[in-house]
Amino acid sequence: MSQHIVIIGGVALGPKAACRFKRLEPSSRVTMVDQSALISYGGCGIPYYVSGDVSDASELCTTSFHMVRDVDFFREVKGVDVRTLTRATRIDRESKQVHLTDVTTGEESVLGYDKLVIATGASPRRLGLPGEDLKGVSYVCNPDDATRIREGISKGEVGKAVIIGAGFIGLEMAEAFADMWGVETTVVEITGQIMPRLVSPALATMGQRHMEENGVTFHFGETVKAIEGEDGRVTRVVTDKRTLEADAVIIAAGVVPGSDIAREAGLEVHPRGGVIVDEHMRTSDPDIYAGGDCAIVRNLITGDQAYLPLGSMANRQGRVIGTNLAGGDASFDGVVGSFVVKFFERSMAGTGLSLEGARAAGFEAMSVLLIQLDRAHFYPSKELMTLEMVVDKPTRRVLGVQGFGSTRDAMVGRINAVAAILKYAPKVEDISNMELAYSPPFASAMDILNSLANLADNALRGINRGVGPDGFKRLWDARDTDGCFFLDCREAGDADPYIERHPGEWHNVPQGQIYDRLAEIPKDRPVVLVCNTGARSYEAQVMLTEKGYKDVTNVQGGMAAIKNYGVDL
Amino acid sequence: MSQHIVIIGGVALGPKAACRFKRLEPSSRVTMVDQSALISYGGCGIPYYVSGDVSDASELCTTSFHMVRDVDFFREVKGVDVRTLTRATRIDRESKQVHLTDVTTGEESVLGYDKLVIATGASPRRLGLPGEDLKGVSYVCNPDDATRIREGISKGEVGKAVIIGAGFIGLEMAEAFADMWGVETTVVEITGQIMPRLVSPALATMGQRHMEENGVTFHFGETVKAIEGEDGRVTRVVTDKRTLEADAVIIAAGVVPGSDIAREAGLEVHPRGGVIVDEHMRTSDPDIYAGGDCAIVRNLITGDQAYLPLGSMANRQGRVIGTNLAGGDASFDGVVGSFVVKFFERSMAGTGLSLEGARAAGFEAMSVLLIQLDRAHFYPSKELMTLEMVVDKPTRRVLGVQGFGSTRDAMVGRINAVAAILKYAPKVEDISNMELAYSPPFASAMDILNSLANLADNALRGINRGVGPDGFKRLWDARDTDGCFFLDCREAGDADPYIERHPGEWHNVPQGQIYDRLAEIPKDRPVVLVCNTGARSYEAQVMLTEKGYKDVTNVQGGMAAIKNYGVDL
Repeated sequence: MSQHIVIIGGVALGPKAACRFKRLEPSSRVTMVDQSALISYGGCGIPYYVSGDVSDASELCTTSFHMVRDVDFFREVKGVDVRTLTRATRIDRESKQVHLTDVTTGEESVLGYDKLVIATGASPRRLGLPGEDLKGVSYVCNPDDATRIREGISKGEVGKAVIIGAGFIGLEMAEAFADMWGVETTVVEITGQIMPRLVSPALATMGQRHMEENGVTFHFGETVKAIEGEDGRVTRVVTDKRTLEADAVIIAAGVVPGSDIAREAGLEVHPRGGVIVDEHMRTSDPDIYAGGDCAIVRNLITGDQAYLPLGSMANRQGRVIGTNLAGGDASFDGVVGSFVVKFFERSMAGTGLSLEGARAAGFEAMSVLLIQLDRAHFYPSKELMTLEMVVDKPTRRVLGVQGFGSTRDAMVGRINAVAAILKYAPKVEDISNMELAYSPPFASAMDILNSLANLADNALRGINRGVGPDGFKRLWDARDTDGCFFLDCREAGDADPYIERHPGEWHNVPQGQIYDRLAEIPKDRPVVLVCNTGARSYEAQVMLTEKGYKDVTNVQGGMAAIKNYGVDL
Repeated sequence: MSQHIVIIGGVALGPKAACRFKRLEPSSRVTMVDQSALISYGGCGIPYYVSGDVSDASELCTTSFHMVRDVDFFREVKGVDVRTLTRATRIDRESKQVHLTDVTTGEESVLGYDKLVIATGASPRRLGLPGEDLKGVSYVCNPDDATRIREGISKGEVGKAVIIGAGFIGLEMAEAFADMWGVETTVVEITGQIMPRLVSPALATMGQRHMEENGVTFHFGETVKAIEGEDGRVTRVVTDKRTLEADAVIIAAGVVPGSDIAREAGLEVHPRGGVIVDEHMRTSDPDIYAGGDCAIVRNLITGDQAYLPLGSMANRQGRVIGTNLAGGDASFDGVVGSFVVKFFERSMAGTGLSLEGARAAGFEAMSVLLIQLDRAHFYPSKELMTLEMVVDKPTRRVLGVQGFGSTRDAMVGRINAVAAILKYAPKVEDISNMELAYSPPFASAMDILNSLANLADNALRGINRGVGPDGFKRLWDARDTDGCFFLDCREAGDADPYIERHPGEWHNVPQGQIYDRLAEIPKDRPVVLVCNTGARSYEAQVMLTEKGYKDVTNVQGGMAAIKNYGVDL
């Protein structure tokens, strides 16, 4: 019954699968090979080491109780043999052997397996540009890179940094440079927003503004053409629109799954890379498993193939593989696409599909945006958070929720509650009635998630007809041509400063006085209603609609969203 | 089509149903009656007003944008007529009329309705004891009570307080007295623990100890026999075991649903009180709805009738009623029983059934307990949290999760993610694979919820055989008779202080050295394994089991749980 399991790759999934298997079959043998010297490190922690939040790179390579996860640790504590600096070059499925090369000596060897796990991870996407190998250009892919970057900064060698790519790692690195080290930091992004496809332009702009307020510069819609240097060291980044001086360049343009060895062995691999696995994490060869950053899984919302390289995926998939290696029947059904990222004093999180993603997947989707306090409004330490819900109009199915808020856990907690139910194809009403734990220090009596679903319900019924802050900006910018009547329905004290700044353009009737002051509101112009967060403007919309006004829009998220979004009012 | 809706009760559900209905049917009329002068207040905020966290009682009666929710507000802003100080005395279903009495003048009147909403709430359970009406004895049921209590404290009239009942309100009030005002505070509870039936004795003891460390005294298993006073003012509380001096007494012994008017009208009412409603919140009379603290709903886990008086329920149910009053088809399927409470620097939360509740409901339940960090172990601001999962053994169905942690939102966020899926009858593996958003500032790569489900899986498979800190205490206290061998499997530096204190009783073999030092571990005695949080003791259990040891137990939660639980080691 004793088996020999070989695992190619020793960072996240590999060790997890190895240790799980060994606990289930202690008498079997596991050999894990990795081409580098360093194994089982927390790669996701690298930006926090660069920033200095994590003081020592070795912390990324220890257990939570400070044991170093090195070769000795795996042998003594976990009963797993590890061969570092050993590259797997070929899988011979016929003879069930892996061909290995010692990276240091070049010596070749062969290792037989009963079952094999491909945990080869991913590598940073290279841009294929001149200058990409200059000193000072990095990809942030392992603790050694990170140590080099941090040493450069702490020696004062980095005054200006350019980050290429505004995804998770790009933004985390931008914060690390700008926040802790005061480096002049610029992010160049090929699309028009941060976190493209993951959040809406409205949420993205809120995040971008917060980063700008903390000293980060952004250039969107720009393509890097070259990285230039002097004496072998980077000095400039050239885009299609400008040249940026740079002492350090971080390329954070995504990752490429390491599936070459699988493809060469004849396993089923996605045309764009990534090993295809079934719900047991088994490849097209029943004796070979794959998972983590080198594998393609299923998106539980669209049913399509998905690539989601995250350390958390690798850990959960690793356990499933470990169980199945020992004859178990564990499943990993797929992913819904949850994420969270912190930058400075804000965080952005989401799960499921963004509006753009939903439409690309063929849904007839709409979204609503809500700003509300994260706990009872009378509780002292409350904060506003913004959530956006994406809904399939014909079926009322909730496809995703994304949010922008503080760095407290309140926002990601809401996202996680939605993430938990997405695989059950929830309807809007399932979230209207979601039973979040309530007491004033932790939630409002009507929690923001319930309110968000209620707003979606009202929008689907057509009784709440609104735009987000981006829609408001378009209407406001076109006020001379479109002739919209902008009506602030807060109390006079709140509205007066805007009336003073925009006489004749900004108007005020408090919502409670609308029926008495209808004469002040023109019936022959589109009316745009604004309040603090969108609740009173919705009430006003209902009232005006009842009185026969035909073209009434309310601004979802109100002045709070407008302010976060950054309209100059 | 225009209707007249009458709503009896103006605190949480009533206003919500009224406003929702008016937004859907602005041309219809709503009259809301309430027997008190004060309406639409946040009753759940009262403990925070008493403590001083909320500075002014009026904040409990305003909207999040500081508008006072009084009669004028409801008329002008919401279009709802409110008659305060008006008691509904009888419902005449035949003629569709409500009989009213003016509380001030005693004048009687009659109000016709098309549809009626019973939102009569609940009243505090009285103990039926002598002295219950003495000055200084309160029930914390409305802002007036709270103001009186706080005035008494701030005038220095309260040196010693006795709280009767260790449920949510009792604990919140105990904190309010002890924390902000330094009042000598004692809680008397009839059962053996805080939050009876809601959390396990292990979690309850952790919470209790934290409150004791903050100056609160507890007496469990005691029944209050009398409240005594002098000159009409309370001075003592007499229990079956002792006499406690008291300048203030809070009776927090639960609430009683206000369903008399419904019963007298012949509507279906639960034998122990509470109006029975269907999933549309409709009573046995199709023209009468009920909800909030006066209604009985369905428990989605057991299918039984449930009473869960919480402001959050009232708000969600109120919206459902408002929608249905306007001809809609909204549902409130039932409850899973989510809760969260803060005391001092800790919080306790849960959803679904506790182990005790699950067994009472007929499930063949077991539970596991886990302590883990709330975010990446290398991230600077992490904290430990304790979670307990309750599982039905034959079906692997997850019945509930309860937790104890800091006051950050990380713990309640995990509880909410479980709360969201409980109605789908999830299995353990649904939580093993739950896709919580991951990045180091917010979660571990293997989130504590995933780990908790993995632990339950291992326990169900019989490969992790453990006890919680309460089980450990029983074994340790019986060490002279049971002959257990207590083996600390941490590194020597961690174990040595315990060996010094308990020579011959506490032993140490680091988990990584177990195979080499088997000779030190007796095969003929039960072995109890302890590490920091239970992860290494589980590994050690696997190793010893493989080597033929028959009776090996590991302590779930390890020294961290033992310390929180308060075993004197």
